[in-house]
Amino acid sequence: MEKLLDVLAQIRPIDREVMAKTQKRLDSLTKPPGSLGVLEEIACQIAGITGQVCPPIPPKTCILMAGDHGVVAEGVSAFPQEVTPQMIANFARGGAAMNVITRHVGSELVLVDVGVAADLPDMPGLLKRKVAYGTANMAVGPAMTRKEALTALKVGIDVVGEYITRGTGIVGLGEMGIGNTTPSSAIIAAYTGKVAEVVGRGTGMSAQGLDIKIRAIKKALAVNRPDTSDPLDVLCKLGGLEIAGLVGVILGAAAKRVPVITDGFISTAAVIIATQLCPIVKEYLIASHLSEEPGHGTMLKFIGLKPMLFMNMRLGEGTGAALAMGLIDAALKILLGMATFAEAAVDGALDQQ
Amino acid sequence: MEKLLDVLAQIRPIDREVMAKTQKRLDSLTKPPGSLGVLEEIACQIAGITGQVCPPIPPKTCILMAGDHGVVAEGVSAFPQEVTPQMIANFARGGAAMNVITRHVGSELVLVDVGVAADLPDMPGLLKRKVAYGTANMAVGPAMTRKEALTALKVGIDVVGEYITRGTGIVGLGEMGIGNTTPSSAIIAAYTGKVAEVVGRGTGMSAQGLDIKIRAIKKALAVNRPDTSDPLDVLCKLGGLEIAGLVGVILGAAAKRVPVITDGFISTAAVIIATQLCPIVKEYLIASHLSEEPGHGTMLKFIGLKPMLFMNMRLGEGTGAALAMGLIDAALKILLGMATFAEAAVDGALDQQ
Repeated sequence: MEKLLDVLAQIRPIDREVMAKTQKRLDSLTKPPGSLGVLEEIACQIAGITGQVCPPIPPKTCILMAGDHGVVAEGVSAFPQEVTPQMIANFARGGAAMNVITRHVGSELVLVDVGVAADLPDMPGLLKRKVAYGTANMAVGPAMTRKEALTALKVGIDVVGEYITRGTGIVGLGEMGIGNTTPSSAIIAAYTGKVAEVVGRGTGMSAQGLDIKIRAIKKALAVNRPDTSDPLDVLCKLGGLEIAGLVGVILGAAAKRVPVITDGFISTAAVIIATQLCPIVKEYLIASHLSEEPGHGTMLKFIGLKPMLFMNMRLGEGTGAALAMGLIDAALKILLGMATFAEAAVDGALDQQ
Repeated sequence: MEKLLDVLAQIRPIDREVMAKTQKRLDSLTKPPGSLGVLEEIACQIAGITGQVCPPIPPKTCILMAGDHGVVAEGVSAFPQEVTPQMIANFARGGAAMNVITRHVGSELVLVDVGVAADLPDMPGLLKRKVAYGTANMAVGPAMTRKEALTALKVGIDVVGEYITRGTGIVGLGEMGIGNTTPSSAIIAAYTGKVAEVVGRGTGMSAQGLDIKIRAIKKALAVNRPDTSDPLDVLCKLGGLEIAGLVGVILGAAAKRVPVITDGFISTAAVIIATQLCPIVKEYLIASHLSEEPGHGTMLKFIGLKPMLFMNMRLGEGTGAALAMGLIDAALKILLGMATFAEAAVDGALDQQ
């Protein structure tokens, strides 16, 4: 808890003065002011976060937190829990979608076992920081103790801190865990009071499976009575170890003035908890894509984020966050690489002011 | 006209058998089937276009057609026409947004003077294929003669043909021309009967300027009475030389089984004419972004395309098409770089079939 309070105290608003200077530079470039839309907003935001008017292209790290979920006992997933360690091995060998996309955009990929329900062998790129062998079944009681949630949160703070110390300048959120759309739905359901509207088929459930998920979430809400004025209460009762880990990653990055890219449904559940713990965190967030998972739009709207990619993706892992890294690099390159009206001797700069 | 008929006759539906094989390969990869959404659709589409189940990453070319517009005499643009040649020089020196983004995604950028209202000096990357010194004022008569439109169209067919012969495997549409949102609005207005709804501020018009644009377009429609059953009639009466050139690029690429990426409002006006001339062309198109220009969504809906990037951009030049190239490369890398369920020894492939 001390670690968390310490990190929360370090999170400051981003630098509006630097942002104004960056916008002025953008307006001097050979294009109508504002015509690059979100690319310009991202450039200004990263300037405000880093305190640099023209921030360099940042070294990139995607942090993929893995955990298992006791609620799978309710039958909420089409895949068996054995798939979690199998997929970790696939990530470590470089064969998953997330590996392909991080390679494509030039991002490092870090795997963190924060709560997989099996002992994992040593693997390249895997950090073993297991807090528990999966969560308890939230349909019958709290998914985690408060201590487990805080420990997982600390894992996230520590891991992101280590990578930022080594040079990471932007962080993508990723996750893997069989059954983890169910706790994510439960978290947004707790805040909005909507259940059926925020439950989707996850990775391939039938219509019947959907009913099972909705029932499990209603049970979890009734049994646990999460207190939404206490984000840690929501997190430990309804969350997951990987979700708690990601909350730590988000807070730890914001505390060190590093931008964080959201991914899909599960990582955005972590963003909800992080922004409830500290609303300023929102200034450090860049929303990547809108997932096909039906509750994701509700989550983003709840937080107040607008995604830029609409690609009907629903894989998670961090794939949307990684894809967005290429767009973010483009935003920064615009700032660094374009000619000004004066340099290019193009008329019309004044017409536009 | 012969050239056009020749090219139209070469455009064939894309290969559904190859697409089915590609989808089968995608379904064997370590992810729930379909979970990568539009990335999977793009991989299949490019497979169907090229006839290769796993198409290699294609050499990329963005073709930026430039032209001027007689309708600026009506006061439809905030920038003076001198900006067109100044911006061409800026593109040639590498200082425009389009240069930064094409460099970022590894695309060649070709500039084509198909109708700039000034003599341009020789510049690196500039093809001088001027058909006329800008169009006539469509508010008082046809913007182009039928012959001019067909000649500009042939320029597009020839240029894209030359680049495809040299190895180009994917083409992005780009354009530059002061005043060219007005003809683009006029084209979609002709097909939908809506005017005010499809007219926007272009690159920085005032609210008063908006009224001037709307009046100019209404005059153009009344004076010219374009026949929407004859796309060439619409093109020559309301279009522009760079729009006609892009129609040629689109048709020429489809004829040679090369995918084409749409950009914003002006390039999509060209796509309307191209798909009206030959509906099969749609199978060769990948929609990049939704522009902030209010009529762009109407255009994409009219054609039946869904954009993937929502970034409030309104610069044109091809910037959205170029940005999308990075996403398209990711789609193809997924197909080439992921492990199958069998290779990775991950359970659950059968659960998903």
